[in-house]
Amino acid sequence: MDPHRALKYARTRRATFVSELKDFLRFPSVSSRPDRAGDVKKCADWLARHLQGIGLQRVRVIPTRGNPIVYASWLRAPGRPTLILYGHYDVLPGEPLSEWRTPPFTPTLKNDDLQARGAADDKGQLFSHVKALESYLKTERALPVNVKCIFEGEEEIGSPHLTSFIARNKRALRADAAVISDTRMLARDRPAISYAQRGGLRAELEVKGPPHDLHSGSFGGAVHNPLQALCEMIARLHDAHGRVAIPGFYDDVRSWGEKERAFMARTGPADEQILQDAKVERGWGESGFSLYERTTIRPALTLNGMAGGHQGTGSKSIIPAHAVAKLSFRLVPDQHPQKIAQLFRDHIERITPPTVSSSVRTFSAVEPALVDRNHPAVRAAAFAYKKGFGALPIFIRSGGSIPVVNTFQEILGIPAVLMGFGLPDDHIHGPNEKFHLPNFYNAIATSIWYLATAAKLRGARRTQERAEWQRL
Amino acid sequence: MDPHRALKYARTRRATFVSELKDFLRFPSVSSRPDRAGDVKKCADWLARHLQGIGLQRVRVIPTRGNPIVYASWLRAPGRPTLILYGHYDVLPGEPLSEWRTPPFTPTLKNDDLQARGAADDKGQLFSHVKALESYLKTERALPVNVKCIFEGEEEIGSPHLTSFIARNKRALRADAAVISDTRMLARDRPAISYAQRGGLRAELEVKGPPHDLHSGSFGGAVHNPLQALCEMIARLHDAHGRVAIPGFYDDVRSWGEKERAFMARTGPADEQILQDAKVERGWGESGFSLYERTTIRPALTLNGMAGGHQGTGSKSIIPAHAVAKLSFRLVPDQHPQKIAQLFRDHIERITPPTVSSSVRTFSAVEPALVDRNHPAVRAAAFAYKKGFGALPIFIRSGGSIPVVNTFQEILGIPAVLMGFGLPDDHIHGPNEKFHLPNFYNAIATSIWYLATAAKLRGARRTQERAEWQRL
Repeated sequence: MDPHRALKYARTRRATFVSELKDFLRFPSVSSRPDRAGDVKKCADWLARHLQGIGLQRVRVIPTRGNPIVYASWLRAPGRPTLILYGHYDVLPGEPLSEWRTPPFTPTLKNDDLQARGAADDKGQLFSHVKALESYLKTERALPVNVKCIFEGEEEIGSPHLTSFIARNKRALRADAAVISDTRMLARDRPAISYAQRGGLRAELEVKGPPHDLHSGSFGGAVHNPLQALCEMIARLHDAHGRVAIPGFYDDVRSWGEKERAFMARTGPADEQILQDAKVERGWGESGFSLYERTTIRPALTLNGMAGGHQGTGSKSIIPAHAVAKLSFRLVPDQHPQKIAQLFRDHIERITPPTVSSSVRTFSAVEPALVDRNHPAVRAAAFAYKKGFGALPIFIRSGGSIPVVNTFQEILGIPAVLMGFGLPDDHIHGPNEKFHLPNFYNAIATSIWYLATAAKLRGARRTQERAEWQRL
Repeated sequence: MDPHRALKYARTRRATFVSELKDFLRFPSVSSRPDRAGDVKKCADWLARHLQGIGLQRVRVIPTRGNPIVYASWLRAPGRPTLILYGHYDVLPGEPLSEWRTPPFTPTLKNDDLQARGAADDKGQLFSHVKALESYLKTERALPVNVKCIFEGEEEIGSPHLTSFIARNKRALRADAAVISDTRMLARDRPAISYAQRGGLRAELEVKGPPHDLHSGSFGGAVHNPLQALCEMIARLHDAHGRVAIPGFYDDVRSWGEKERAFMARTGPADEQILQDAKVERGWGESGFSLYERTTIRPALTLNGMAGGHQGTGSKSIIPAHAVAKLSFRLVPDQHPQKIAQLFRDHIERITPPTVSSSVRTFSAVEPALVDRNHPAVRAAAFAYKKGFGALPIFIRSGGSIPVVNTFQEILGIPAVLMGFGLPDDHIHGPNEKFHLPNFYNAIATSIWYLATAAKLRGARRTQERAEWQRL
């Protein structure tokens, strides 16, 4: 199928597409806040109606024990390959609100950037594919390939219900490759395909002391402060050289040979680039590795948040009764989250002073993932980028965790093609997140080209439409 | 003046007194919250009207740059001594609200305890004296001594405007002794007079890293986490033995001789008692000192609160941009807050890693204070306790800081008699603060006896009524 009519449609519809994306971004579909479940559901319903509107079929909002999965398909290209298009419509909280120039759920256009929580992660990227599909369906009344859309609402909390959904619907979800756009390019003219993601594990560490807050005048100096104890324990999670100090933590970390490290040095961002993206002057962490390596082939432990005692304005003379730290591990091949969880628990038990008690909760385990850079579905993506962005993509590793990559590989036996459209300065997960609109337009074109190119993939499997309806 | 008619009046009015105290406790007069300034003012107005109602004279709500001072006097006993009665009507915040059995500003009677924020610290104790004054004025139409009431609204934030108020009105506030009831007894039948209070200094320590939160997947392992850095810095404020690790911190700490330490061992609470009061199993802190000594003749540094990154429910994959810790020092003779502030700043500067920046703010400096146990006004208090509680008081040191003690001593040249009526398990500054009602009744009786006894103090100074009105 010639993509040019679809491309032309997309070019003329840009203003409409941006306006629709703004509607999509207005939903505070925050998956980590149980009180936002209603907004998440509304967002799913909106997305489903939208998919119906552009001509996709069998659109469903499929309930899970958590947030629903929005499913839609178009399977009228018998004999052609089938692609899964995966994205997530949930977002992180907007806090700290005071640091946003405009409210996170009031999408605002500033020059060529659309600013809103979820603009780049992942509503904008997901929507690029939706608009590509629309561009074909509204011009050709058909797609070049079969498509199954899986848009989930729980990616930001570790996709707790997606794996079981895919496992339960393994036959119905048969496909030749999955496309995931939830990563970033190196720069506006440097597209990238992520071929490795770190795994993850979240942990909450609570330290308890006295049963309730004590007056720090009366007891200060004689009773151990659980907040201080927590700080002292946190200080023992890294050594003075920025290495994680949990015994055994590095035991299973794969050592990469000179060839792969040379490839990474050639393709990946330089230290200066990473520092510039982070807007910090100095790097930090394990010596002997570039910053790019530290964030991709080396694991990390990050303190995401901490709370204890009196916060906010004013002061309060207390020894707080308890304190909590929220942490997350980023893991690399061949580490396994469950083993790391146990090592962490053992370490915490060892370093908890006898004057306080501690408890550990771990959750959101994600295995690290690697994708074959030479798979035909990945090569097709390279071609599409060349057409959409005018440049061949660079193959990079990602520091983040995309739980579904491993799921697609392990359960469906298909590669996940990570076509990222974000930019390093999109501020995803932070205040003032944005999506660069030229990237949005080029992403749509890239997706249009990808759908056309994927039609020619050899070894395409005949779609099992019946299976889809038996199970989903 | 015979106190028996006043004592009888107080006994028959108990239910009314409790009901009035409840009204007093309903005001959320939280001084550490600027948004509560209106409630603090309302509380001051209520208190002033109440003092007017019981027959005190020249009642005024005196504005300061912060919360007002409620002043009232009765100066119709020429030739008799003049007492300053000091108390504070401001309170700490009620948070964490979820840990209260009943809301902090809904005073609730449970058995013999009146539960509310401020019940013991300090509204209940302050009110004991007010009710003693009322008992005389309603029965004798006179007081045995001259009285000047100074009830301030900023004690919990370090009395920032009281010292200058007293300094400005030095002549008008001339008196022979000040009575302060803002401390506690050792047990229900063991009254106590505090003859030493630790000084204090508050500090806020902020650590900044990247200009905004970063995605911990993308940057975890390569960018220093200011929250982690803050924890690591906090961990360097104490050594492994619980001693403050700031160089020079102990240089000016007075060593007490065997005689004083033996007196303290005889009169002060045993380690077991302090642990029981705190409801913890083990003590903590400097070896070589009893827990009582650690909280009185030894300084302490307490982490009162800390906040950074994502808090509350859910999780968020970020490297936070900054983190803040709230700390307070408790100081002892001959330490000086300003010198300690400098040592702290120097230490923080030394231990701030080059990968982040830090800033320190210090405030609410309070000098440590000592009161002569043998002053006649103190001895009179011992007698009053014996009458009111049926037992002679024990002389103890307090771990907390009462800024005004030093102010009265230094500016007015008068001793501060610290007659405490609280109990160790009153949960002051914590959830479920309460005042034990039998203590309230005995405190009123003790105050009635004290006023009668103080009338006989030798060396009493003729009150300068004119001076009061020239200045106040």
